[in-house]
Amino acid sequence: MDTHMQNEDLAFSDSDLDAVYRAIFTRRDTRGQFLPDPVSDEVLSRILMAAHHAPSVGFMQPWSFMVIRKQATKQKVHDLFDAAHVEAAEMFDEEKRDTYKSLKLEGIMESPVNVCITCDRNRAGPVVIGRTHVKAMDLYSTVCAVQNLWLAARAEGLGVGWVSIYNQPKLQDALGMPRKIVPIAYLCIGHVTHLHDKPELETAGWRPRLPIEDLMHFEHWDGQPNDSDKPLLESLRQDQDSAQKGDIPGR
Amino acid sequence: MDTHMQNEDLAFSDSDLDAVYRAIFTRRDTRGQFLPDPVSDEVLSRILMAAHHAPSVGFMQPWSFMVIRKQATKQKVHDLFDAAHVEAAEMFDEEKRDTYKSLKLEGIMESPVNVCITCDRNRAGPVVIGRTHVKAMDLYSTVCAVQNLWLAARAEGLGVGWVSIYNQPKLQDALGMPRKIVPIAYLCIGHVTHLHDKPELETAGWRPRLPIEDLMHFEHWDGQPNDSDKPLLESLRQDQDSAQKGDIPGR
Repeated sequence: MDTHMQNEDLAFSDSDLDAVYRAIFTRRDTRGQFLPDPVSDEVLSRILMAAHHAPSVGFMQPWSFMVIRKQATKQKVHDLFDAAHVEAAEMFDEEKRDTYKSLKLEGIMESPVNVCITCDRNRAGPVVIGRTHVKAMDLYSTVCAVQNLWLAARAEGLGVGWVSIYNQPKLQDALGMPRKIVPIAYLCIGHVTHLHDKPELETAGWRPRLPIEDLMHFEHWDGQPNDSDKPLLESLRQDQDSAQKGDIPGR
Repeated sequence: MDTHMQNEDLAFSDSDLDAVYRAIFTRRDTRGQFLPDPVSDEVLSRILMAAHHAPSVGFMQPWSFMVIRKQATKQKVHDLFDAAHVEAAEMFDEEKRDTYKSLKLEGIMESPVNVCITCDRNRAGPVVIGRTHVKAMDLYSTVCAVQNLWLAARAEGLGVGWVSIYNQPKLQDALGMPRKIVPIAYLCIGHVTHLHDKPELETAGWRPRLPIEDLMHFEHWDGQPNDSDKPLLESLRQDQDSAQKGDIPGR
């Protein structure tokens, strides 16, 4: 029997729609706000299940989830962060280096649970539907799992921080991963004192939120918007104004 | 002034939390269910803004959005799909080839709007916070934007299908993109007659939903769960049972 969700039931109620947008617009990368309170197994299970229900190319489900709660394991990862962070600082021009060094970029030790989400590129054999031409589709599927987990965690009231400053082979070695398993995201997860209203790099003046109208293209990369595209551009401008004020766009 | 969302306000109400999980668990890749009804500019604007508020490495915001509504442009992309689809069919073993050919894998022409989400790898200069060691982080950020759009679209009652069967340089040429701009996702978007309860490849018996307990690792890739990990595994089993029955896990 092919049961399915019918057209008339598909659109969420206004309040449910607002909830989804609230998760999306108030999600933050969390670094310095973690509380030591444990994350319950029930909540951790739900956010992992949210990840497991991401879209995946050819239903490959290439992800695995490594749960890390011991301080000794976290310390190994934190040591890798420290080493890479020193290397990273040297890459910035002098004018930006001090700002870079002043930023809190991870909460590995303070967050009660870390989750490393990985991609097994051979999960479904050599030929995968939808991955015959774009080989990176399995990596992209795994990132969709990361974003599902992040939004579910936001709704559960948890903070999540994505740590990406490490030498990848050294991380694989520290966690005992075979080279063929790609660590996509090393996530710090926990309850938090608060979440910032805006991304910290925006508040710090590192980079501004880009005007979305500058990111739009129509029909062709070099195409100019025609008259029929203008109402969309006007909506985007209004929605970005709302979002910058902390309101949910368009609602 | 550093305003922020306080701890006590962070967790969503039960009904708002359910809404977020409903978006995550009922999102589907849509191919054959599109209706010709136009997508309003207000709705298209909101889902694009959701994409623009994805996490991005170093606040790089590397994404751009190409909106395609003309049948002539879609036809060019559909021609590329057709050519790649023939090549793809030849890659499957004979036993799976007929099934592969019978699957509807895209809704390019039938969906009223297509959106190509791209990644500009040079958007923020040569050195980006958080991308000093894992260069793919900008690609991953762009995928987070795709998933934000997809979940927002689900809540708005729209279907989204991700097309990935094409030759990438030919797609860049067809849409006038410079080689340095990476097309991450070519999305077909529109109202739909219905959404399937489960992924079509699961229903078709192509691959089953993997048991999440088989995807779990603890502290080390080869680590066995210890007694303190067992409640999480039990929650995961229960939540997966619920999800397979169409219920929202754990709630």
